[in-house]
Amino acid sequence: MSDSDWSVPESEVLQGVEEILDGEHRGVLATIIAVEGSAYRRPGAKMVIPEEGPGSGHITAGCLEDELQRIAGEVLAAGEPRIERYDLRPDSEDDVWGLGVGCNGVLDILIEPIDESYRPVTEAVADDRDIGVVTVIEGGQTGTRAYYHPEDGELVASDGFPADLADRIGEAAAELTARGRADTVELDGTTVFVDGITSPSDLVVVGTGNDVAPIAEVGKQAGFRVTVVGFRGANATADRFPAADEVLSTSPARITETLDLDEDTYVVLATHNFVDDRLAVDELLGTDVPYVGLMGPRKRFEQMREEFDAEGRAFSEDELDSLYTPVGLDLGGGSPYQIALSIVSEVLAVANDREPQHLTERAGPIHDRVEVDP
Amino acid sequence: MSDSDWSVPESEVLQGVEEILDGEHRGVLATIIAVEGSAYRRPGAKMVIPEEGPGSGHITAGCLEDELQRIAGEVLAAGEPRIERYDLRPDSEDDVWGLGVGCNGVLDILIEPIDESYRPVTEAVADDRDIGVVTVIEGGQTGTRAYYHPEDGELVASDGFPADLADRIGEAAAELTARGRADTVELDGTTVFVDGITSPSDLVVVGTGNDVAPIAEVGKQAGFRVTVVGFRGANATADRFPAADEVLSTSPARITETLDLDEDTYVVLATHNFVDDRLAVDELLGTDVPYVGLMGPRKRFEQMREEFDAEGRAFSEDELDSLYTPVGLDLGGGSPYQIALSIVSEVLAVANDREPQHLTERAGPIHDRVEVDP
Repeated sequence: MSDSDWSVPESEVLQGVEEILDGEHRGVLATIIAVEGSAYRRPGAKMVIPEEGPGSGHITAGCLEDELQRIAGEVLAAGEPRIERYDLRPDSEDDVWGLGVGCNGVLDILIEPIDESYRPVTEAVADDRDIGVVTVIEGGQTGTRAYYHPEDGELVASDGFPADLADRIGEAAAELTARGRADTVELDGTTVFVDGITSPSDLVVVGTGNDVAPIAEVGKQAGFRVTVVGFRGANATADRFPAADEVLSTSPARITETLDLDEDTYVVLATHNFVDDRLAVDELLGTDVPYVGLMGPRKRFEQMREEFDAEGRAFSEDELDSLYTPVGLDLGGGSPYQIALSIVSEVLAVANDREPQHLTERAGPIHDRVEVDP
Repeated sequence: MSDSDWSVPESEVLQGVEEILDGEHRGVLATIIAVEGSAYRRPGAKMVIPEEGPGSGHITAGCLEDELQRIAGEVLAAGEPRIERYDLRPDSEDDVWGLGVGCNGVLDILIEPIDESYRPVTEAVADDRDIGVVTVIEGGQTGTRAYYHPEDGELVASDGFPADLADRIGEAAAELTARGRADTVELDGTTVFVDGITSPSDLVVVGTGNDVAPIAEVGKQAGFRVTVVGFRGANATADRFPAADEVLSTSPARITETLDLDEDTYVVLATHNFVDDRLAVDELLGTDVPYVGLMGPRKRFEQMREEFDAEGRAFSEDELDSLYTPVGLDLGGGSPYQIALSIVSEVLAVANDREPQHLTERAGPIHDRVEVDP
């Protein structure tokens, strides 16, 4: 297992699918389609198991890997998709999976040979488009597909996909794709698995100082598509930011033209240059970008505000709501990676619309005693 | 700059010092001793600039690196430590540093040739001991040292360190070392820089599933000394956890004997095995460990609690205060690295005694208008 990248973002798993499609070896895609109880991953979690060589992704914390490798071989031999159910609860009959091997919950897993029917997905990923993958699970020909394209609201069904279902599954497909979620949906005796595959959210880090590379790296680990932007050309080179998907140069005034800024883009301003940051804040707060993290103390933005006031540039409450300064969560750390962690954690929380509190607090107090009747 | 590890934890910078001491090339150590206003790093931040080859660490976001390289050469040639002041504020006379190069604040930096006088520090680091480094800055022979050893409260002064100062600096040295902080202290006309160098906090991850390697990696990036513990020998191998400082095997009942658990150790239980986790919780909640993060839903611990109740094992409020379950901050992510981020962020916040809120909220609302008199 040590030579496989088992813990990669979904985008890398899908890249693994593309490598199978374009390469010489065959492989299977294993996807969790349903989870009962608690389990390590959610529906939609995927892994690629190639015939040879290292795989990509993982769907359990470890208990099923050997079994899935074995089944992968069978699926490749048969050339047909299969659904397997694993009851990993400690007291189930499949106890051999639960006790001592470290898993939980009941998992339904779709295991499919990777073939050209999955190509619309890899193309969408390459084009940075979202796509909803609808796969028949029960009550029809298992594995037959339709694809939902949110950019035009079209559902494109492959041969064998039930026509009446195609007419009626669009709404569920649209909703799950919009949320980037996966779920099983039953309509008139046919069950489908709808997998909303969204292109990664964008993390844009503006700046080229020593503090940027850790933010790019942690952001990439966290699953963002990372762009590093320099306002001064000489330093905006890809070799300095190996984790970034893209490194580019522009000027503050042209930032909204140069970048594809939308409601799924999160921007961190780390130029350490007052004038540049101020110009960028001016440009960015007027866009759909839900998060503009400005490095530096609050006082620095107050100084910018005085200059904005003097120019008659006012900001609405909505615009100011998207400004986060000082940037990051209060974790108390001062090292470059601790700062990167605090920033990317904050961005994740905002992207997922969460209050960054301790989950243990959200679950309520750990009571000392079970309630006793007075 | 791309071939240097510029963003490493302090422990790695100190390792860079040791490599200079034991190697063939000379080098200097640049340390921030004072900061006025806001700057990227705090007092105590260090970087190693070798005569040849890549350096280690950085103390600004980028504006002073070339200048420091230049001065490093002069310091090596002269063989004497130097203190340099850089006013990086945009409107200062050193404007060339501030505007367009991206820095801020006023920095006082001590630049010293790395020599055997620093050996006590590398030895302390190798032994996992804390040490306070006291260096004369002003009003005496710049660069002369004394070392504070918290394990016995002894201050050991080198030749040339003022004797009367040695008698009186102990308290400040003890306090700064205990807090792992650095500051300048003035006593009777002599100014010293006291650098409290603490061994990294310990992050212990119990488990050997696929979810552990990302936690180890992110924990290491965040500056922890990482130990991975397996309760089932076969999987606890170092190659599976390249980021871990140590990988070892033990049993739940022997966890407190096998590990060095203290108030600076943070434990994450990720065995995914109910029995093992329960035994570990039982052992760990009775120790000085301030953080026991238990993976899984709250309900899982409630099930453990029923078994504890049946055995008559009760927990005090203090013990339960150190239990965090579900583990991690609520960031909304489900991928292995997003989970790792949420856990390590939580551990950092607890280690630094912070409430993990948005720093922008801690700074108060961003007012839309300056207050106007009614």
